[in-house]
Amino acid sequence: MSFKVSATYQGARAASLATNHGILQTPFFMPIATRGAVKHLANSDFATIQNQILLANTYHLYLRPGLEVLKKCGGLHGLMNWQKPILTDSGGFQVFSLAALRKITPDYVIFNSHIDGRELKFTPELSMEIQAAIGSDIQMCFDYFSGYPATRKETEYSVKLTTAWAKRCKYYLSLSSGHPSPNRGGKEGEVFGIVQGGTFPDLRKQSAQELVNIGFNGYAIGGLAVGETPQEMYTMIEAAVPELPADKPRYLMGVGQPEQILEAVKLGVDMFDCVLPTRNARHGQVYIHPSPLRRGEGGEVVAPDLSMVNYQKINLTGSVYATDLQPLDSYCQCSTCTSGYSRAYLRHLFSVNEALAQRLATVHNVYFYVQLMRDIRAIIMKSSHL
Amino acid sequence: MSFKVSATYQGARAASLATNHGILQTPFFMPIATRGAVKHLANSDFATIQNQILLANTYHLYLRPGLEVLKKCGGLHGLMNWQKPILTDSGGFQVFSLAALRKITPDYVIFNSHIDGRELKFTPELSMEIQAAIGSDIQMCFDYFSGYPATRKETEYSVKLTTAWAKRCKYYLSLSSGHPSPNRGGKEGEVFGIVQGGTFPDLRKQSAQELVNIGFNGYAIGGLAVGETPQEMYTMIEAAVPELPADKPRYLMGVGQPEQILEAVKLGVDMFDCVLPTRNARHGQVYIHPSPLRRGEGGEVVAPDLSMVNYQKINLTGSVYATDLQPLDSYCQCSTCTSGYSRAYLRHLFSVNEALAQRLATVHNVYFYVQLMRDIRAIIMKSSHL
Repeated sequence: MSFKVSATYQGARAASLATNHGILQTPFFMPIATRGAVKHLANSDFATIQNQILLANTYHLYLRPGLEVLKKCGGLHGLMNWQKPILTDSGGFQVFSLAALRKITPDYVIFNSHIDGRELKFTPELSMEIQAAIGSDIQMCFDYFSGYPATRKETEYSVKLTTAWAKRCKYYLSLSSGHPSPNRGGKEGEVFGIVQGGTFPDLRKQSAQELVNIGFNGYAIGGLAVGETPQEMYTMIEAAVPELPADKPRYLMGVGQPEQILEAVKLGVDMFDCVLPTRNARHGQVYIHPSPLRRGEGGEVVAPDLSMVNYQKINLTGSVYATDLQPLDSYCQCSTCTSGYSRAYLRHLFSVNEALAQRLATVHNVYFYVQLMRDIRAIIMKSSHL
Repeated sequence: MSFKVSATYQGARAASLATNHGILQTPFFMPIATRGAVKHLANSDFATIQNQILLANTYHLYLRPGLEVLKKCGGLHGLMNWQKPILTDSGGFQVFSLAALRKITPDYVIFNSHIDGRELKFTPELSMEIQAAIGSDIQMCFDYFSGYPATRKETEYSVKLTTAWAKRCKYYLSLSSGHPSPNRGGKEGEVFGIVQGGTFPDLRKQSAQELVNIGFNGYAIGGLAVGETPQEMYTMIEAAVPELPADKPRYLMGVGQPEQILEAVKLGVDMFDCVLPTRNARHGQVYIHPSPLRRGEGGEVVAPDLSMVNYQKINLTGSVYATDLQPLDSYCQCSTCTSGYSRAYLRHLFSVNEALAQRLATVHNVYFYVQLMRDIRAIIMKSSHL
């Protein structure tokens, strides 16, 4: 079995998830490399951040560089020279949010590329084919996101299509050719279904049940963090999680602020991705610790419970930082905070619009998120009831 | 004496130049950190490129972050956390090329900032004061660049003002207060005069003679690489160099392509800066070796003479590189070329406009230039007539 829970505490769990490119320790955060790069970061940065995995996007990589390049270059692992796991979103969310939709039928979606307007047709099968060419270790079923807000009727339709398309994805992978990509060493990779259901708890339950009946290696909760309140989001997670098998990983897509991630971890979620650390960094917003986490002699976090998320967001473009010679975050071990860079320098770089500002802030914010998950896992492991 | 020639060959020389932040080995190339950052590069990149020095700009740093921040943050060394030498251009070239000039008199220049249009007044004394606040190790006298093309009369006036202003710069530094900045440890730093004279050999000679009569720690040749032909440029260097003392460093400002740098080295020039490696990198143009330089067992260049500049410029945005899995330059030891990045990946990153493309290409091009100078120096040292 590729997923093994080794500790639980306060509803949270720590587990291991085996993939074609190594074993992941949950809970974990996935920096977003939509088009095959986390904006501004190189592999040398990942080596110091020590993120376990990257997330890439099927829709974007299909448009550029395209299937042919991916196939010839050893998939995204080969193209990026990244040898750890890659998860790919199916492209569903992007087709329904970025592109100009032309036509949607139960069989296919026709839309115009957001780049050059050319007309493209997506099917669940094509999404799986692209993810195979990418060589994705954890691939998502092609899902239908109904937008936010959505009526009950629209949401029912999105659950219906999402289930039907999930079946087609699974069938496609089960064909004798199997479509295991040479880019993943001839193996299939993990396949996750995506729970839809908008802000309707019963539809969330239904969607989860239907996907579990099909059977996947893991389950994502999609269509959240799109405008609803955090409380609505938590309610939807609470509706879906009990329907999902305890022995499979759960992935909350696109969430969120650190306290939201922690809350979701306590609700039993194992995997996260979010644009906030990278996008905020590019605008000078960084996450810092106002005080140190208590740590033991080996550097491990010592905390009474999971209420250890204690952070501040500061905006480095403020003039208050013009002569502030402190590091970004005195309690952070990222390369930006430990290489002698000051807030004053970062503030100057942002004020003159130097790309280095975005690079240094991105390194810090991504490290902050990845370290947060390491700390959460350490607390679960230490306090486990198992 | 702070400048010591240790080898000469084919007109070229290898020397050492002592500064407040360490000894420089000539000939050398200065990556351009106009506003306190080489676009996209961090100090960790400089550690692998091993450039000896950075060049920053007085005009830009005066506008942002301004004198107060520079003074409070330990100058540019403190702000950047860069502990090796910094050379600053005086701002003359920028005032006359970037800003909207309002009025020029023998006493001062009034212009509008190219950023926000505010009216500013520059004097030779202010230029030196800013360079002191920056804590520059090698500072340039405020000079008057007449533009290109310029008439003989305009050029005569630029030589006249440049000489008069150079006197004022030297006088300002000689005042009892001395204006040695705390940001350079109470020392004055080196001061260079800038030879003007446009494309008129006799005016170049005259400008050089007048500056030598004032007496500086080194001499720059300015106002070139602005539109004249390479042959005109070489003629101007040939006119100026014999007038400059052999025991002082010579700096050719803003030049150029690798073969132009080599030509200037042979004409006796020691120091170079140029936007080409960084600017070209940002547009996907990189310098590569079509074949390896012959090297000995210790990695040192083995070449019969200084005709060892052998390079190609390729444009990574070309579709020919879409599936090219070779490194950028198989004969390069920069971190981009030795970290498993392929031309195909770089090409993809450029095609989707990821900043990482600019970062990786900039690292390579700057390394190429810095390594070129190391190789040139090695050949001079090995073949020296001294």
